[in-house]
Amino acid sequence: VRRLRDVGEHGWIARLARRLAAAPSRRVVLGVGDDAAVVRSGRRPLLLTTDTLREGVHFRSGWTTPAALGRRAFRVNASDLAAMGGVPRFALLALEVPPNMAVAALDRLVDGFVADAGANGAALVGGNLAAGRRLSVTVLLVGEAPGRVVTRAGARVGDGLYVTGTLGGAGLAVRRLAARRSGRLPDPPLRIRAGTLLARVARAMIDVSDGLVQDVGHLCRASGVAAEIDASALPLAAGLRGPRTGVTFAATAGEDYELVAVVPASSARALARLRRRLGCRLTRIGGVVAGPPTVRLRDAAGRIVTLERAGHDHFR
Amino acid sequence: VRRLRDVGEHGWIARLARRLAAAPSRRVVLGVGDDAAVVRSGRRPLLLTTDTLREGVHFRSGWTTPAALGRRAFRVNASDLAAMGGVPRFALLALEVPPNMAVAALDRLVDGFVADAGANGAALVGGNLAAGRRLSVTVLLVGEAPGRVVTRAGARVGDGLYVTGTLGGAGLAVRRLAARRSGRLPDPPLRIRAGTLLARVARAMIDVSDGLVQDVGHLCRASGVAAEIDASALPLAAGLRGPRTGVTFAATAGEDYELVAVVPASSARALARLRRRLGCRLTRIGGVVAGPPTVRLRDAAGRIVTLERAGHDHFR
Repeated sequence: VRRLRDVGEHGWIARLARRLAAAPSRRVVLGVGDDAAVVRSGRRPLLLTTDTLREGVHFRSGWTTPAALGRRAFRVNASDLAAMGGVPRFALLALEVPPNMAVAALDRLVDGFVADAGANGAALVGGNLAAGRRLSVTVLLVGEAPGRVVTRAGARVGDGLYVTGTLGGAGLAVRRLAARRSGRLPDPPLRIRAGTLLARVARAMIDVSDGLVQDVGHLCRASGVAAEIDASALPLAAGLRGPRTGVTFAATAGEDYELVAVVPASSARALARLRRRLGCRLTRIGGVVAGPPTVRLRDAAGRIVTLERAGHDHFR
Repeated sequence: VRRLRDVGEHGWIARLARRLAAAPSRRVVLGVGDDAAVVRSGRRPLLLTTDTLREGVHFRSGWTTPAALGRRAFRVNASDLAAMGGVPRFALLALEVPPNMAVAALDRLVDGFVADAGANGAALVGGNLAAGRRLSVTVLLVGEAPGRVVTRAGARVGDGLYVTGTLGGAGLAVRRLAARRSGRLPDPPLRIRAGTLLARVARAMIDVSDGLVQDVGHLCRASGVAAEIDASALPLAAGLRGPRTGVTFAATAGEDYELVAVVPASSARALARLRRRLGCRLTRIGGVVAGPPTVRLRDAAGRIVTLERAGHDHFR
């Protein structure tokens, strides 16, 4: 018997995407397999995405406050929309809550979610509440695209690879929390505005949730290209020292929720013009090359950096 | 400290609905507190709903097959849309799966969901897959309303109370399964077509998920009315014997996923015309009366039937 742990999270999703693609629908612009789904209802495209935060899997009790968990639940979902140039509009919250959880704590969680959503154009409109052994927060986010919708497919040989913000900070916080049981998970960054701006010039985008190398790998597979990443160019989060360890850690740690954008050289000027409006750093970290869909990380001397793992898989 | 078990599922949701209503949005036609949310994107109203099926809470392993669980996940969510006159269009599946679950079983679950959704006009367009100790299936359903959107509010004194199909069958199956550990959970009925037809004449609707008396109570609170239910008129599922036990059981057992529609006397003719097109039985079970929002069940002699509980609450 083949188990989920044999095929892995991404292997199973890729299989499902292929099976569903066999029966396409005119109203489904983009189904399973990208950051968010794109559907058509009326004239406007709608973006749909969902993500879960579960105690014991995605966070441990004591790593975060209820309000920060609410913000996190909003932001990790908003990140998927941002990676397509979308903005969040409507949210549902499907909660599983231990019966002995304090009402005030659950209220703070929802308030954290609602406040962050509201500040970013989205309203909580419904959900579900069920009893469970562990706290689990599933968010369903419906978004719109003010401009172009940018998928993972579309990268071409010669394009540049850019990343917003810095990498490795969330991974470092998790490592410290797991070791010392102190500190807090940092809030994921908000890249909604950056996403809509980058969508004007990007041929492909993805957000870094499971690790840069793995997520750029998804983009490469969707686009049918390979990528070379310049390890020395990676914008490391503060606190990541030791050039070699720091870089491989930042390239694979995940939970950064930064955006990777693939921009053609022909859009360099347009990119330069919108750079200062992004609200965050933007770093060129490599380029798209021909070949089977793999991601190579090279050090300053041009040597390929070997990685033990590319990123996170729930079942492996 | 007040715990969730102190305020209960419905108490907490009612509080949240009041808090969110303090900051209304022009794009949110109907937020937390009805069967589904109604939002506006472009010109058409969109209906959004979510519901979770969790092993150990909503079903036990062995009570159902993977394919039937997939169908159930679709149908309990479609029921919420049907209760507003909506039809499902797009679905996301947020899954939590034990790593040792067989891939073939998960495939059958998703296939059961996709087949049932497809046969009813909806496409699976995305989702999330995470590892967990127990199998949990959360569905987000996005729907459209071909005609009027019917909420829980709107019932008026003098209106008739109608229910589709029969009551108590699912509760009976659960009772037998829990006692004998044999049999299967029946598939919930599909009332999507019935919902869109009833929406033409109904002033208010709700689906029976937690128990008839409790769910009609929600409708009464939303409408600011009371309801009288004629116990002898309840359409009992096959196998429910013993007039008194059978009736109180059917009135409170839940999981029927039938629709309750409130229809004014002035629409009696229109109702008669569309009755045969519903695809299911429709029974008048009582009427809307004045008074504080309570539900009274009366036996054939007019005596009030006392109920130990009105229905299901996850935290009580």
